[in-house]
Amino acid sequence: AVTFRASEHQHIRYNPLQDEWVLVSAHRMKRPWHGQVEPQLLKTVPRHDPRNPLCPGATRANGEVNPHYEGTFLFDNDFPALQPDAPDPGPSDHPLFRAEAARGVCKVMCFHPWSDVTLPLMSVPEIRAVVDAWASVTEELGAQYPWVQIFENKGAMMGCSNPHPHCQVWASSFLPDIVQREERSQQSYHSQHGEPLLLEYGRQELLRKERLVLSSEHWLVLVPFWAVWPFQTLLLPRRHVRRLPELTPAERDDLASIMKKLLTKYDNLFETSFPYSMGWHGAPTGLKTGATCDHWQLHAHYYPPLLRSATVRKFMVGYEMLAQAQRDLTPEQVRAQSILGLHTPSPHF
Amino acid sequence: AVTFRASEHQHIRYNPLQDEWVLVSAHRMKRPWHGQVEPQLLKTVPRHDPRNPLCPGATRANGEVNPHYEGTFLFDNDFPALQPDAPDPGPSDHPLFRAEAARGVCKVMCFHPWSDVTLPLMSVPEIRAVVDAWASVTEELGAQYPWVQIFENKGAMMGCSNPHPHCQVWASSFLPDIVQREERSQQSYHSQHGEPLLLEYGRQELLRKERLVLSSEHWLVLVPFWAVWPFQTLLLPRRHVRRLPELTPAERDDLASIMKKLLTKYDNLFETSFPYSMGWHGAPTGLKTGATCDHWQLHAHYYPPLLRSATVRKFMVGYEMLAQAQRDLTPEQVRAQSILGLHTPSPHF
Ligand SMILES: O=P(O)(O)O[C@H]1O[C@H](CO)[C@@H](O)[C@H](O)[C@H]1O
Ligand SMILES: O=P(O)(O)O[C@H]1O[C@H](CO)[C@@H](O)[C@H](O)[C@H]1O
Repeated sequence: AVTFRASEHQHIRYNPLQDEWVLVSAHRMKRPWHGQVEPQLLKTVPRHDPRNPLCPGATRANGEVNPHYEGTFLFDNDFPALQPDAPDPGPSDHPLFRAEAARGVCKVMCFHPWSDVTLPLMSVPEIRAVVDAWASVTEELGAQYPWVQIFENKGAMMGCSNPHPHCQVWASSFLPDIVQREERSQQSYHSQHGEPLLLEYGRQELLRKERLVLSSEHWLVLVPFWAVWPFQTLLLPRRHVRRLPELTPAERDDLASIMKKLLTKYDNLFETSFPYSMGWHGAPTGLKTGATCDHWQLHAHYYPPLLRSATVRKFMVGYEMLAQAQRDLTPEQVRAQSILGLHTPSPHF
Repeated sequence: AVTFRASEHQHIRYNPLQDEWVLVSAHRMKRPWHGQVEPQLLKTVPRHDPRNPLCPGATRANGEVNPHYEGTFLFDNDFPALQPDAPDPGPSDHPLFRAEAARGVCKVMCFHPWSDVTLPLMSVPEIRAVVDAWASVTEELGAQYPWVQIFENKGAMMGCSNPHPHCQVWASSFLPDIVQREERSQQSYHSQHGEPLLLEYGRQELLRKERLVLSSEHWLVLVPFWAVWPFQTLLLPRRHVRRLPELTPAERDDLASIMKKLLTKYDNLFETSFPYSMGWHGAPTGLKTGATCDHWQLHAHYYPPLLRSATVRKFMVGYEMLAQAQRDLTPEQVRAQSILGLHTPSPHF
């Protein structure tokens, strides 16, 4: 019988955090690609454009004028998907037609006054200011809402419609779907094993090393065993931290520094300003802030779409939308062969 | 207090088939779009190109020569994500690192000998031949495998790398993730209510009419109450049918005809050859063929990416990848305002 080798033989892997399976077909990278290539937008972005609603001093869609901000800047999204006062749809008349109330707020956070920088091009103290702003907005909106979703869509490929460095914050009256899965999985792992799932997971990855991308005094970056996107990573604190506001000053500085390293590696991988969607997950807030949330471990997910080069992405389409996520190289290959695991970062892009 | 109106007030809706929630923010269509627009590839596709590996008489990557087929044509994918003989990864050494064996086959099915047609441009008898080929391949591969996933990625935007009209068939030794969710939901609905979830759902939509797109003697097409993609539809038989091979000749003819109508409406909506991923779900096969699968109702999902025009798509990115699916117009608006519900189909594209 042939001996199983993950790098050669297809198999399925389980994601214990989100209760999902992924099909890993390592041999499939050999297939040629004649499909859609992404436009390489090498447009130079002007540092300041008074018509760009994210710039200091610019006028936004609602007529408000931005201050001449010098660090981060947080404001209400002019086209929010969530508003604070939507009425309740009321009871459902049939179990197959269930709707519930959704309330919330959507904010935009600019990372820097300049439009022509990205996080990896910013200095560590500037990134540290972003970390502080994330912690504050979690505290501020988390006082009222059970969930505060911080996320960044970077690059046109990820639906980002403005090159100015920024992220979004959507706070909601409900626990979103994917969060509910993480809540259930972490809760059940904690009650079975007596410790947080992601704390044990990070410890294991530090021992095993084969998927570890970066480690620092307080943080780890790894390609999760169950990664779906080719260069997906998970960013984790080494100690048990439930939410962003709990991070100490030293942990925040170290986070800024490891983020800069990770994002520089990403940029260097295909010599492009690497597109991704990323976001933070931590214990629920609002009325749940007091509840036992010891099963939660703070973490950030990075989901980059590129597969082979700056212009060839992984399409999550037919099989993935209808059956199961599928990836074309193993997480260990990403770590070992690719630039993610080996190169010394140098901020080229 | 303000009265709730789905078309104006955000809310969340539950998908009882896949056990998921979607955030519906109807008011968000008003937001301007300055982001990525998709290339409109108005390339003319030659009817026959001997270098195209899907054409009759062409030589494929593995050196095999296609027959001069005149109807549908089924062959093994030269770059399969699933192969029949992968070894077993063996037992896991830790509950957070679980892998299992995956075996299967990947096939490609050409719909027609010509590269310059699409399903809506084919005649009803030609589409009927595709339906028959789907039923046969389900029977053939379903003899061995518990799941046979038929899916079509149409258009470059959906990762389709060859314009020749075709779909794929991936049969696997495992029940894929999304299928497991549908299995659980239909099973539990059936045991609670004594009838298949989707049979009752179709009946309700026929009564309610507000999301119904097409109906015929044997079939229904509707925008599901819980649709995620802007113009997503669900295609259902009106009687209880568990798998494609069970369809009668009359039901197959009628299916060919309603598919032609639906896809023509899609093409007319934004005056473009409408991109989508679609696929069939029916009761499991293989060793499960004999088991009680009365909770299963055959259905096809259509997931088209476009939102506003032939070049502006919905991006399922940051919030959607990290928190919950979100849509910008209600399923009822799609049915009522858009061309999907009203226009008489005429095959323009
Ligand atoms: O097999 P194809 O058509 O080359 O590949 C396409 O469909 C597959 C199944 O959905 C995806 O895994 C690929 O990412 C996509 O490009
Ligand atoms: O709010 P934006 O950046 O305009 O919009 C982008 O991110 C949102 C949240 O992930 C998505 O719903 C949109 O489809 C996407 O274009």
